[in-house]
Amino acid sequence: MSEVFSTPPQDRFFEDYVVGATYVCGSFKLSEDEIIAFASRYDPQMMHIDRDLAASGPFGGIIASGWHTIAAAMRLMVDNFLPHNGLAAPGIDELRWPRPVHPDEVLTLHATVQEARRSRSKPDRGLIRTLLEVLNQNGEVVMSMKPLNMVRVRNPEI
Amino acid sequence: MSEVFSTPPQDRFFEDYVVGATYVCGSFKLSEDEIIAFASRYDPQMMHIDRDLAASGPFGGIIASGWHTIAAAMRLMVDNFLPHNGLAAPGIDELRWPRPVHPDEVLTLHATVQEARRSRSKPDRGLIRTLLEVLNQNGEVVMSMKPLNMVRVRNPEI
Repeated sequence: MSEVFSTPPQDRFFEDYVVGATYVCGSFKLSEDEIIAFASRYDPQMMHIDRDLAASGPFGGIIASGWHTIAAAMRLMVDNFLPHNGLAAPGIDELRWPRPVHPDEVLTLHATVQEARRSRSKPDRGLIRTLLEVLNQNGEVVMSMKPLNMVRVRNPEI
Repeated sequence: MSEVFSTPPQDRFFEDYVVGATYVCGSFKLSEDEIIAFASRYDPQMMHIDRDLAASGPFGGIIASGWHTIAAAMRLMVDNFLPHNGLAAPGIDELRWPRPVHPDEVLTLHATVQEARRSRSKPDRGLIRTLLEVLNQNGEVVMSMKPLNMVRVRNPEI
């Protein structure tokens, strides 16, 4: 079930994250030129940068670096999921790329809140554990991960 | 203990990865301009893009997006650790950013092979599990993760 936040990112706090809710956080595409440019700098493997070799490879053409898919998904997470007064993210668990990302696919970010608990040592914040999934236009998951995020509490005294 | 590969990346196979060995895979820096450019596109949080706000924040200035640190580390992994005839990477476990990355720090990638096992279903390949760590110039870990990589076997018949 898709839910909508009751608050915009600039006024979003720990209390606004509903455990079990899935928030649809927008869509993006990666063009072949963008894929090649990103990978040429950060992940210059054949399948990401060489059109001819990629065409004869297992994916039939260029596919995106998994780090590019994540970076683009992160942008939607910052714009539409995380609070704008955010704190550090301690880490990510279970990052997976079950399917390749081809150029110009329509990719949509789903964020499902799996856990939300107040910090015992720091009452002004809480920890949100989320399942992030990027789905292609066929509804297939192309990337998933479970980030941890520290988020400020609106009413620390409660 | 730092080890050196017996083969260059273009001639590297599953058999070349020694369990327990730590390979030092090179160093990099991220300039403040690069940090801001990457984060403006992919991770536009205040601490990564706004010099003035970042200066008054908990880190005393701009820090790199964790995704930028990973992307730059991935480049060294492709250049110096993975074989150039590589296969897909199924995923990453336990991604952590224990310390911030400030502009112009000298960051060095260490790759420690934790597990190497042949595939039972596909005898031409094996799975390598690695602890990747990015250390700053003080020897402190600023990022760590445990990637899984499928790697071709040199002699599948053995």
